[in-house]
Amino acid sequence: MSPPYTYLDLVNQVDSFPNAILHPVRHAERLTALKLFTSGSHTLGYMHDPIFEVLKTTAAHERSEKGYDHWVITANTVSIKGESVEERSRNIKKTLDHWREMKTFEVCSGKGWRNELYPVYSPNGELFLEMERSAACLFGVVQYGVHMTVYVPGATTDDMRIWTPTRHATKSTYPGMLDNTVAGGISSGMTAWDTLVKEGHEEAYLEESLINEKAKCVGSVSYFYERDANAGGESGLLQPEVQYVYDMAVGENEVVPKPNDMEVENFVLMPLAEVKKNLEEGKFKPNCAFVLIDFFVRHNIITPETEADYIEICSRLHRALEFPLCRSPAAKKHVHAHHV
Amino acid sequence: MSPPYTYLDLVNQVDSFPNAILHPVRHAERLTALKLFTSGSHTLGYMHDPIFEVLKTTAAHERSEKGYDHWVITANTVSIKGESVEERSRNIKKTLDHWREMKTFEVCSGKGWRNELYPVYSPNGELFLEMERSAACLFGVVQYGVHMTVYVPGATTDDMRIWTPTRHATKSTYPGMLDNTVAGGISSGMTAWDTLVKEGHEEAYLEESLINEKAKCVGSVSYFYERDANAGGESGLLQPEVQYVYDMAVGENEVVPKPNDMEVENFVLMPLAEVKKNLEEGKFKPNCAFVLIDFFVRHNIITPETEADYIEICSRLHRALEFPLCRSPAAKKHVHAHHV
Repeated sequence: MSPPYTYLDLVNQVDSFPNAILHPVRHAERLTALKLFTSGSHTLGYMHDPIFEVLKTTAAHERSEKGYDHWVITANTVSIKGESVEERSRNIKKTLDHWREMKTFEVCSGKGWRNELYPVYSPNGELFLEMERSAACLFGVVQYGVHMTVYVPGATTDDMRIWTPTRHATKSTYPGMLDNTVAGGISSGMTAWDTLVKEGHEEAYLEESLINEKAKCVGSVSYFYERDANAGGESGLLQPEVQYVYDMAVGENEVVPKPNDMEVENFVLMPLAEVKKNLEEGKFKPNCAFVLIDFFVRHNIITPETEADYIEICSRLHRALEFPLCRSPAAKKHVHAHHV
Repeated sequence: MSPPYTYLDLVNQVDSFPNAILHPVRHAERLTALKLFTSGSHTLGYMHDPIFEVLKTTAAHERSEKGYDHWVITANTVSIKGESVEERSRNIKKTLDHWREMKTFEVCSGKGWRNELYPVYSPNGELFLEMERSAACLFGVVQYGVHMTVYVPGATTDDMRIWTPTRHATKSTYPGMLDNTVAGGISSGMTAWDTLVKEGHEEAYLEESLINEKAKCVGSVSYFYERDANAGGESGLLQPEVQYVYDMAVGENEVVPKPNDMEVENFVLMPLAEVKKNLEEGKFKPNCAFVLIDFFVRHNIITPETEADYIEICSRLHRALEFPLCRSPAAKKHVHAHHV
């Protein structure tokens, strides 16, 4: 596929793993080349067969050379032993540290290693284990993030401008591509809101008070991404993902996001027509394009009158994932209680 | 299930047919009790077995008594003969007219018959046939509609009020329940926008100029509904559905929707807290509750901080349906062309 891209092309690039409802045959065919990372009768993620084979070798090595035995491996499943979150997390860490040391996988070796723990949830929506972020896509577990679009509304929709950063040319993932104003992954123990505030400060130098006042969560998007070379590490790694989506409308001179670390080269207040052109030309990081398409739908920029694939796009932006998902901790029982 | 309902309860009431991704075993079990309405290798809708048996009897009667033979029926599929949209529509009409005359199914007899044609699409997104609206749920084909929320924003979100109609006590479907400000099904040959303007006038006496100026399409929601007794006709009929969703923000005294036909008893400008209470108590027509939950997500009324099932709700509001869907006629090739 080459530019110019349609909106559906851009959705397809991110939600690229076959969907069991829309393409059941392709989905089934793909599964035959995969193994399962499981907990009891539940599948937490899909693993490519070569990764599964490496894990078998590592587990044998751990048993014979290191004196521990943390994996249960069948013909087509792997699961990690442990009676608690802490024990399971400790057990998987030993294997991942070994892979890091041996440079087994590029994605979690050298500067690929993030030294950041990501949560994996069990079917009841509670934490099941924590694992090194860069290894999550080896096990194909669901990852979580936040994306915020900071924009200056115009007299008409066409006059809208969006604060758009360019990723630093030295970044290991998607160097030089355009990004959402604020975006980042949710580490274990952090809420979506904590992450938004942290990334807003780190990436765009936005004040916490401003985020508290103006950032609004307006949904979540979800997709099942097969990573390409630009993602860093091996190609084809599996990354089902949920992004909490935030909008922040600001006045023209109210906020000027500034690079605050080495993540971002610069920010420009980009006119909507230019954002569209850059989308069409494939200049946005793929999942940022995905989030912008959701923004365009909600802001009546993509409409049923102009977009033949409107219904498919609206549905694909919110893919149902076949893995256990995070349930927020602040559960309240009834609708009305939410109002408190 | 009885009140008070959570938001997820309300979603479950509307998106009630098992989802192949989230509940593959329940989905497969349900399919064993169904037959398929097909076109070639594609499934256009699911049919309950007793309906399939009636169709076999009717087709045999048509062949022996009326001299025509419009159905191809196998052990588990039915398809309608015809080389064109017109021919297929004419053929299915003969069977449906017979059922109406014989009062075979309550849903499309007597005052159930709508005398309105609904479109069924083929896998390329083009019109495949037109059929009587009230019979669509016998064949389980996808139906399309529009829902608009007309609201008066407040100083804070909590001060928002929503123009809420009560359905007339004499309506055959969901009598006396609360509804969205404007809602209606899309007939064959009508666009979503045409339908919004027509229903806005018929149901709420809104001027076309006002709708043109202020109504914004902000997405589509989709679900697979198994009809209950309140829907009119037989219970359990299958209704996969897509609703184009519109928002219209108005000033306090700018618009006063008025009943313009026998659909609506009255409109009230309902404070948000009261809308929530009525949702919790199950007083909204189920798919109107579904659309309001999407409104609540987009307007930051339901948030990840207050709703444990946030991710599931966002995904379930946009279910991927396993049937061919409408593609809008106004297709443009590239992202940038949409800007024209």
